[in-house]
Amino acid sequence: MIQHDHGLGWVRPVRLTTPSLSDNSADMDRLLRALSGAGPRPVAGFPLLQKVSRSLRQWDFAARCVLFDDGSGLRLLDILDPQGESRALGVAVDLGTTRIVMRLVDLERKEVLSETVMDNPQIAVGSDILTRIHHGSTPEGMDALKRVVGEAVDNGMETLCLQAGLSSDAIYAVIISGNTAMTHLFMGLPAGHIIREPYIPVTNIPGTLKADLFLTHTNPEGRIFFFPNIGSYFGGDLISGILYSGIHRGEEISLLVDVGTNAEVVLGNADWLVACAGAAGPALEGGVSSMGMTAGAAVIDRVSISGDDFTVGTIDDLPPVGMCGSGFIDLAAVLFLTRMIDPKGKLVEAACGNRYTEEHGLPAIVVVAADASGTGEAITVSQASLDSLIRSKAAMYTILETIVMKVGVGFGDLEKIYVAGTFGAYIDPESAISIGMIPDLDRSRYEKIGNSSLEGATLVLYGDRYIPEANAIRDRITYVELNVDQDFMIRFSGAKFIPHTEPELFPTVVAAMAKG
Amino acid sequence: MIQHDHGLGWVRPVRLTTPSLSDNSADMDRLLRALSGAGPRPVAGFPLLQKVSRSLRQWDFAARCVLFDDGSGLRLLDILDPQGESRALGVAVDLGTTRIVMRLVDLERKEVLSETVMDNPQIAVGSDILTRIHHGSTPEGMDALKRVVGEAVDNGMETLCLQAGLSSDAIYAVIISGNTAMTHLFMGLPAGHIIREPYIPVTNIPGTLKADLFLTHTNPEGRIFFFPNIGSYFGGDLISGILYSGIHRGEEISLLVDVGTNAEVVLGNADWLVACAGAAGPALEGGVSSMGMTAGAAVIDRVSISGDDFTVGTIDDLPPVGMCGSGFIDLAAVLFLTRMIDPKGKLVEAACGNRYTEEHGLPAIVVVAADASGTGEAITVSQASLDSLIRSKAAMYTILETIVMKVGVGFGDLEKIYVAGTFGAYIDPESAISIGMIPDLDRSRYEKIGNSSLEGATLVLYGDRYIPEANAIRDRITYVELNVDQDFMIRFSGAKFIPHTEPELFPTVVAAMAKG
Repeated sequence: MIQHDHGLGWVRPVRLTTPSLSDNSADMDRLLRALSGAGPRPVAGFPLLQKVSRSLRQWDFAARCVLFDDGSGLRLLDILDPQGESRALGVAVDLGTTRIVMRLVDLERKEVLSETVMDNPQIAVGSDILTRIHHGSTPEGMDALKRVVGEAVDNGMETLCLQAGLSSDAIYAVIISGNTAMTHLFMGLPAGHIIREPYIPVTNIPGTLKADLFLTHTNPEGRIFFFPNIGSYFGGDLISGILYSGIHRGEEISLLVDVGTNAEVVLGNADWLVACAGAAGPALEGGVSSMGMTAGAAVIDRVSISGDDFTVGTIDDLPPVGMCGSGFIDLAAVLFLTRMIDPKGKLVEAACGNRYTEEHGLPAIVVVAADASGTGEAITVSQASLDSLIRSKAAMYTILETIVMKVGVGFGDLEKIYVAGTFGAYIDPESAISIGMIPDLDRSRYEKIGNSSLEGATLVLYGDRYIPEANAIRDRITYVELNVDQDFMIRFSGAKFIPHTEPELFPTVVAAMAKG
Repeated sequence: MIQHDHGLGWVRPVRLTTPSLSDNSADMDRLLRALSGAGPRPVAGFPLLQKVSRSLRQWDFAARCVLFDDGSGLRLLDILDPQGESRALGVAVDLGTTRIVMRLVDLERKEVLSETVMDNPQIAVGSDILTRIHHGSTPEGMDALKRVVGEAVDNGMETLCLQAGLSSDAIYAVIISGNTAMTHLFMGLPAGHIIREPYIPVTNIPGTLKADLFLTHTNPEGRIFFFPNIGSYFGGDLISGILYSGIHRGEEISLLVDVGTNAEVVLGNADWLVACAGAAGPALEGGVSSMGMTAGAAVIDRVSISGDDFTVGTIDDLPPVGMCGSGFIDLAAVLFLTRMIDPKGKLVEAACGNRYTEEHGLPAIVVVAADASGTGEAITVSQASLDSLIRSKAAMYTILETIVMKVGVGFGDLEKIYVAGTFGAYIDPESAISIGMIPDLDRSRYEKIGNSSLEGATLVLYGDRYIPEANAIRDRITYVELNVDQDFMIRFSGAKFIPHTEPELFPTVVAAMAKG
């Protein structure tokens, strides 16, 4: 379990000395001095100047102060009745290319009040980033992209507040964790140079801005913070994930892997951090196997075998209509351990028995018969899909091997491997190890950390140490390009076998095969 | 002459390295890094994020950067074409209770382009601060006070730009130097506690805010800075004056005296600063002698004697209609040196000859006969007015004596005495010394520095060292209350003689009397 130290919370009670002839500091200065202690003086906005004198006298020179980091220092956003019921809220946003996940947080109690998920409405323009950026190359296109996503987040905030029975006027902080392109499109910033050599974003460190530049359902003094990015291909969502994983704080070396369309990998400890992003291959995201499915209701996410029968688990336990990545990896592991595929991933007709079939003249295997399927047709996986999965798993393993080699350590030196991302949440490490996608280490070293982008954004709402920490992570990371050179290709070729051309790298898989 | 070191100007040229695969910082980060060097990163607003990428490419990665201090650090307000004609302007405002004086400054060339003066329109509510604060105790009253002064400054900015033939959209900085009450009323902040024990302002350090909170004729990203105050009775205009005088930077001890309705006195050097404010008495401001005049057209500001005749000088050389403070001090000096008043300030009928008259049964003296007056009536000064002047000059001298004694130095230790304020601009040190209002020092030690409040505000537009310096002055000042105790009263009694009960304090006056 990851341990976090929030630092000071954003809502802090103060009790001031009462003004007198011998202590005649101005009201605001008295308040800011009490908040800053020996540190730098927080900044206060104009609306607060207008009400501070009356409020302090009304509350007998005590208050609950709502603060937020302003990029260059602490800003006092509001003061609340020390005895009152009024709340101070924050919203964490995982701004994904596909999905947006949002949480409402009580800044004072440091607890999640509600959560909501929606599609990123920019999907209507295009499911991929490139299409959206092209669409945003005209001012009208950019306005539309910015508007739809802003409205979606705004609606999300309304939903969250309705669920919690609270007013959105109490939202003082919104934390956006998204990749570099999504963050730019949310802000309405020109993103054309992100996808054109030499791949230059408008900003690496958007920092903190007024929330009402982008959103309507916040307090008028509310702030919005964007996680910083390292460049066009290493975004704030990953910085947020690192923050949550805590690998940047450990003495031992740990690894964080976030698997989506790309596999982003970060390796390091309190002394150093090395990151790379590489194409893990399309097979790891549902939608690329012949089923064409991302994780969702009635999609197979678990496959096991008992006797001769595949047992499939589906999301929401509905009759299966397709298969997503984690199900696909489970299936490949089952096929390999039962020798229905060979070490090259090729279907072995004799071993498959009556599951063996052909589609368009190519081998395929029936996973669910037509009578058990939710569609009325058999759910099959083709040799082409299996080939694609083998390439993906080989890429994944080679990336992990390469980054570990680059810093001169071995997999055995890793204290923990944190697996993040939607994909990471579903994957069964046992299956992934069986096919040689991830190293054969003690299973206790693997820890799933779920939506680390959302978790990191939530942390920022819990205390004042996380924004400086996120910026420090950004500054500390050494980003390495994965050169696909001859050495890489040799390692990749070795990894294209199941589990590997050097089976001694996977002792538990070898043992399982021997037992089977 | 006061020497100033502006530090870095607010408009700075940059030339950036061109982005490449090996140097792929985001556009804004590249720019901010070039501006900050090794120092803290400046903050940039959202409008600039929207245009930075396009502008930098259009200008071949060069720009003129418009910066301003944001209270907590440097803010990049805009970028201008490095080859273009576009200007960056600032406005310095001396926000007086009676008058508002404004200057338009070119931030890049560091030169004054135009200047304008207007009455503070809050005078319509009341000429004194108390009346205005009472008027501002209702929301409507406060709104009206804020609105009229904001409109006046806005109109002034329009006038300044018209005079210079430039657009007010190029105004990026507005510097407000005013006393604590005027600053509060300009901002529309509740000022009621300023005048009520224990005399607490809303804020001592308003700092820098967005200019469009108060004004319309500025760039949308323009900032407004308010000089900090020490308390209700020692305002930002005095901090501005100290900044301009430079006494806080000298090795030798100097004194700054700003004489208006009150006499504010600051004494010190680079190591320490001590300030006090005391009632100099109403006689030093025109409007309290029987003539009832502040300095203005046709008002006597100079009086001398040649043979038997008074020679009077008036503002704009018009036939006299009244007399202001500096004329009054000149007159008193002439009357004393010609023995028409005695050392107690009493008119000596025999010495006055046919100038002697009576009004309402009390002695008075004719300064200008009816036929030479602009009103058709003789201009006279009553014994009561002279008595009042004597009390004022005694108060002034006692205050100076007290503050100098408090820190254990003598008048002879003073390197310079800077005389500031509207009154200071007109006063003749020779006359003031003759009546014992200010110490009898070598005349070269006195330096008039004019409207030091406006000059200090102008300095802030010239470079980045002045805002930190103003804040440091504020923090360094030890403000002493002038306790009117027995010792003070003994010194005050001594000063109520002309020049003093101890004439050896005024050797040049004694010598002049002996000669006369």
